[in-house]
Amino acid sequence: MAEAHWETLLRISEEYHDLNGSAFQVLHTPPSALEFSRLVHISRPVLIKEFHVPAHSAWTNEYLIHQMGDRNVSVAVTPNGRADAIAADEQGKLYFVEPHVQQMTMAELLSKLSSSWVRPSEASGEAFYLQSQNGNMYTGNELEPGNEACPSEFEPLRKDVPSEIDWCCEAMGKHPDAVNLWIGDSKSTTSIHSDPYENIYTVIRGAKHFTLLPPTDGCFMEERSYSHATYARDSPSSPLTILPSPNPTPPVRWSSISDPHLPNNLPSVAHPIHITVEAGEALYLPAGWWHHVRQSGDITIALNWWYDIEMRGMTWVWLSFLRGIGDEVPAANWQEDDNDAET
Amino acid sequence: MAEAHWETLLRISEEYHDLNGSAFQVLHTPPSALEFSRLVHISRPVLIKEFHVPAHSAWTNEYLIHQMGDRNVSVAVTPNGRADAIAADEQGKLYFVEPHVQQMTMAELLSKLSSSWVRPSEASGEAFYLQSQNGNMYTGNELEPGNEACPSEFEPLRKDVPSEIDWCCEAMGKHPDAVNLWIGDSKSTTSIHSDPYENIYTVIRGAKHFTLLPPTDGCFMEERSYSHATYARDSPSSPLTILPSPNPTPPVRWSSISDPHLPNNLPSVAHPIHITVEAGEALYLPAGWWHHVRQSGDITIALNWWYDIEMRGMTWVWLSFLRGIGDEVPAANWQEDDNDAET
Ligand SMILES: O=C(O)CCC(=O)C(=O)O
Ligand SMILES: O=C(O)CCC(=O)C(=O)O
Repeated sequence: MAEAHWETLLRISEEYHDLNGSAFQVLHTPPSALEFSRLVHISRPVLIKEFHVPAHSAWTNEYLIHQMGDRNVSVAVTPNGRADAIAADEQGKLYFVEPHVQQMTMAELLSKLSSSWVRPSEASGEAFYLQSQNGNMYTGNELEPGNEACPSEFEPLRKDVPSEIDWCCEAMGKHPDAVNLWIGDSKSTTSIHSDPYENIYTVIRGAKHFTLLPPTDGCFMEERSYSHATYARDSPSSPLTILPSPNPTPPVRWSSISDPHLPNNLPSVAHPIHITVEAGEALYLPAGWWHHVRQSGDITIALNWWYDIEMRGMTWVWLSFLRGIGDEVPAANWQEDDNDAET
Repeated sequence: MAEAHWETLLRISEEYHDLNGSAFQVLHTPPSALEFSRLVHISRPVLIKEFHVPAHSAWTNEYLIHQMGDRNVSVAVTPNGRADAIAADEQGKLYFVEPHVQQMTMAELLSKLSSSWVRPSEASGEAFYLQSQNGNMYTGNELEPGNEACPSEFEPLRKDVPSEIDWCCEAMGKHPDAVNLWIGDSKSTTSIHSDPYENIYTVIRGAKHFTLLPPTDGCFMEERSYSHATYARDSPSSPLTILPSPNPTPPVRWSSISDPHLPNNLPSVAHPIHITVEAGEALYLPAGWWHHVRQSGDITIALNWWYDIEMRGMTWVWLSFLRGIGDEVPAANWQEDDNDAET
């Protein structure tokens, strides 16, 4: 990045922080549609202390297993809990690696998650995370009138998950683009990234620990261009290894910051905010905010509603500028260094 | 400006225009608070075709003269209709020139405005514009509970002008910072500038012609640093001349674009939008948008409500960046050129 451009971005990050600080707003109960519309305009994270959907009270293990029966669901498997993250192969070459995806029943998933706590000796060391984030509960398409017939892996659980959040829908004037279910344990983390969505994220069980950085800190994310790969195994019993994707799979632009919650992993001029979301709470995570997510609890369950960012006006242009979209992104080093991966 | 920085701004201006175009939304009636909150987030101009306050029907000349009686009001006087604008002195040195301010009754003002039409031979050639824009109808202070006792020059007209616009106040969660009355004629224009206010602007009589440019076109405004001056006369009967302000009056950062509504006055890559606001209509003019205003009609009367921009979040930082606040602004040339002033 040219020196002058870097200094501009640094100044913007400072100015933003001087004006806004690192505090976040806490609401006791959900906002009205009008209040939420204002919050979207301000675009700062907000923790809502009391947020309830039927899943919050209904979803015991027994209930989930009973409802889902012998249906298969798609679960991400990684050797290290880092799905969709940067990792080094045996030669030290860095990749953006997608998880291996395994089909299993809800009963199998829940036992794999709790086995690492209850019977550590039986734990494979691999991490399982239901994180398909493709609108596994509901997708935007089917929420449009006339498109109702899109099957979800989680059909039997839908009655506990509203397809809409009224105040959000009314404020944004649209339906969510995707509603996602996340089931994992503390082995799994989500690497730092940002999404073009206004995100309402509620925890059903356990707790999620968000490390958030404003879009103005995008310049500290060290986005690089990484070759694409997937975790795969030679046979059902062999360990997962990194399988580079065949040409011409395009490279992936991704942050090189692996653990922004740890000291010294981010430059000291960055401005992280730490928010823990407990069961029964919800986070408003504004579009364009960088987030890294850890979890605690034997089994952590969460739901989130993604609403497309408002494309009219200046937000999109501003976020693109802050990410340096259109600027050249350097290719990642072939050599792993401390900051890049810790596999 | 450094070449790379200029290219970044140029690209942002293009991207914004590609995404948003030059159309503006037209609403038949005022929005609800929630709709307005969304419009503020989108931050694009909106024309409201039907907007009514008591002034729209009550304000005949007779009524205004009768209500105001022999009270004096402050009127801006200029030789050329350009108050708060760039002008050259006899040596060709450019200044940001504030108007001469003259006290007169409403009857005198209205007769001066209409005399240039009815009896051209009697017209002095000077332009009179009631445009004090200091909250001459209401100021934010007095709208706070407990501060009601601030006198307005226009006290007798207040009953025709609401101090609040409900949907705006509810959407913004605050009172207006200022409510202004504007009375002038087609001799007067307002030079291009931007304000840190969400602006609701309604025309009571005549029409106002806005040339608007988005904040992303700030790079085309050729803001320069101008010495400050005021129009003054030696004796009550002598003509107005430019009186440089004594040191240490700080210089004024102002656009060098004098007539953005005329062809070739703006670079061809700029994206002006032209909106005429007729009597009974209102314009939502978003904070940070550049505006140049002309007027038509024998006597043009308008009112506007300025709401402070939302300072939380990213808007302020973004607008400052687009204006190059913090960057050095070159001092204006001593020589007048076509683009700078046409006095
Ligand atoms: O819960 C997680 O692990 C990640 C959540 C996330 O990235 C999102 O909701 O956008
Ligand atoms: O009406 C005019 O002449 C100027 C209006 C203006 O600049 C404003 O409302 O901010």
